[in-house]
Amino acid sequence: MFETTGYALESATAPLTPLTFNRRDPRPVDVAMKILFCGVCHADVGLAHGEWGFGNYPCVPGHEIVGRVTAVGSKVSKYKVGDLVGVGPLVDSCRTCAACKEGHEQLCDTGFTPTYMGPDKDFGHTYGGYSHDIVVDENYVVRVPGTINAAAAAPLLCAGITSYSPLKRANVGPGMTVGVIGIGGVGHMAIKFAKAMGAKVVALTTSAGKADDARRLGADDVLVTTDADAMTKSKERFDVILDTVAVSHNLNGYLGLVKREGELCLLGTPPELTAAALALIFRSKRLTGSFFGGIAETQEMLDFSAKHGIAADIEIVRLDQINEAWKRMIAADVRYRFVIEMALTQPA
Amino acid sequence: MFETTGYALESATAPLTPLTFNRRDPRPVDVAMKILFCGVCHADVGLAHGEWGFGNYPCVPGHEIVGRVTAVGSKVSKYKVGDLVGVGPLVDSCRTCAACKEGHEQLCDTGFTPTYMGPDKDFGHTYGGYSHDIVVDENYVVRVPGTINAAAAAPLLCAGITSYSPLKRANVGPGMTVGVIGIGGVGHMAIKFAKAMGAKVVALTTSAGKADDARRLGADDVLVTTDADAMTKSKERFDVILDTVAVSHNLNGYLGLVKREGELCLLGTPPELTAAALALIFRSKRLTGSFFGGIAETQEMLDFSAKHGIAADIEIVRLDQINEAWKRMIAADVRYRFVIEMALTQPA
Repeated sequence: MFETTGYALESATAPLTPLTFNRRDPRPVDVAMKILFCGVCHADVGLAHGEWGFGNYPCVPGHEIVGRVTAVGSKVSKYKVGDLVGVGPLVDSCRTCAACKEGHEQLCDTGFTPTYMGPDKDFGHTYGGYSHDIVVDENYVVRVPGTINAAAAAPLLCAGITSYSPLKRANVGPGMTVGVIGIGGVGHMAIKFAKAMGAKVVALTTSAGKADDARRLGADDVLVTTDADAMTKSKERFDVILDTVAVSHNLNGYLGLVKREGELCLLGTPPELTAAALALIFRSKRLTGSFFGGIAETQEMLDFSAKHGIAADIEIVRLDQINEAWKRMIAADVRYRFVIEMALTQPA
Repeated sequence: MFETTGYALESATAPLTPLTFNRRDPRPVDVAMKILFCGVCHADVGLAHGEWGFGNYPCVPGHEIVGRVTAVGSKVSKYKVGDLVGVGPLVDSCRTCAACKEGHEQLCDTGFTPTYMGPDKDFGHTYGGYSHDIVVDENYVVRVPGTINAAAAAPLLCAGITSYSPLKRANVGPGMTVGVIGIGGVGHMAIKFAKAMGAKVVALTTSAGKADDARRLGADDVLVTTDADAMTKSKERFDVILDTVAVSHNLNGYLGLVKREGELCLLGTPPELTAAALALIFRSKRLTGSFFGGIAETQEMLDFSAKHGIAADIEIVRLDQINEAWKRMIAADVRYRFVIEMALTQPA
């Protein structure tokens, strides 16, 4: 094992403070990497605060990791020292259940190993990307194409795959109209991917002030959801709507915008959504949820991003600014993702 | 036109009282029938009381109609005088939209014509099956197989197709486990159909007292949803759950019973359902709704019922007992469907 440093919460209610901790030496199947960038995901806040039903402290958050390979185990075949690689929200899974075999490791029947606060036989639990080093089984590492800005690629590992996966599942392409509710970390990526897939893309927002920005991101149109007249005119306009809103809300209005047999897909994690049964029944609509993606699909998403010149819109921060970054993220004061540049903070 | 009699509400808040009204003479494409039986659907109450967003009075309810053909128009090719036929919740649709062309007339883009209170060029609006005669375009009539008890076939026209259609859509068959929440008009049909399709069927109920009855209907097992231990043991047990509950409720517990990428399908019409986003997201589940079915699928369901000896469990009532029948149905005091036998009441 070897020492590294990062920022951690000592409990569910603590602020993030510096932590020195151990990583395992690479096993034969492992890739060790120096972390270059880590995206700051909205889920980091809820996860670290124990709101997802589990918590192991100290908690080093971070699951949008881009790093440079510094060492590989003897059996590693996919990566070599110097490669630019990525790690998302999971670092292991059972590999034998139907979900794993289908490439949906994020749906592993026995529960995947989260990148932080997950079970780990070496150190009690896993530590995430708000740190300078990480060691991960090569099967849970993806390759970051060299043509993408490495900092802007970091958010692809969670925000990117979370928006890409449901669009692919819905076979989004030319001739389809996609709505994206909420222009934040996930929402701004959804606009870019849906556009690159050939769909007509409409950004749904409560704030007309975001219209220009939504168009700059690739939206063909903007629907201000507080405009009752515009909402009426958009009835059954969408094949698919991705809902990235994080707070509890009623879905009836949004379901009304979905076409017959169309889909409203939840990507945000509100504790309570409400809807009338008839909003789904009358025109045979469906409400779904989507939870990032598997390793193979994450690689596919990165390759798609490189091909189409897609990456996140980011604001670089230092690791020692992370408490302030969380505060601003919670206040939606970021366009559209904070990324920690590790080189700006010397390891302790 | 010709006179017939039935029972009607004069307004959304009125009781059902006798009414004499006119039906059109059969057009070239029409089938005229003497109504033999009409099922009493839970939706009749909400529809007649204007709770579905429209209301045209006097309202003659009833959309689970079995009748004997008494006359046919010159261009009618499918039916002849003396045939046993059925009419469900719709009597016309645009016939040109994608939904109609796909055989989903119940999802007609311009709105199908409901069997009662719908627009009708001859008489202002349509009148339903709580009456002695009806005249319907042959394309919206189905054939009732002679081997089914005609009275017990009536509820198949709505309760039957409403439960059959989502089971077919989900490709229910051997090796699958289907849950049915609520053992009422729709629920008891769902148990019978899922069993006949080869699935393992589990009845979900709050009342342990219904267990024997559920097994008699064909359920392989009964899950009492107030038994926390049994609920925990049934986690991710079901490929599909059909939820027939009519009152507002929270879905998190039921969603937990659905397998990865499985479906919870709403057939009841509660005004407000609540759920946590993560209940759908974590294991990529989906919440759907289903709204009876198209004409071709309704015929398929009737033929399937005849083949498998399936019909509703009914209690026969007279038309002049309809107010009492509604009260008992609302109180869930019927096993499992009231059917009005028209011959028990003389036309006025």
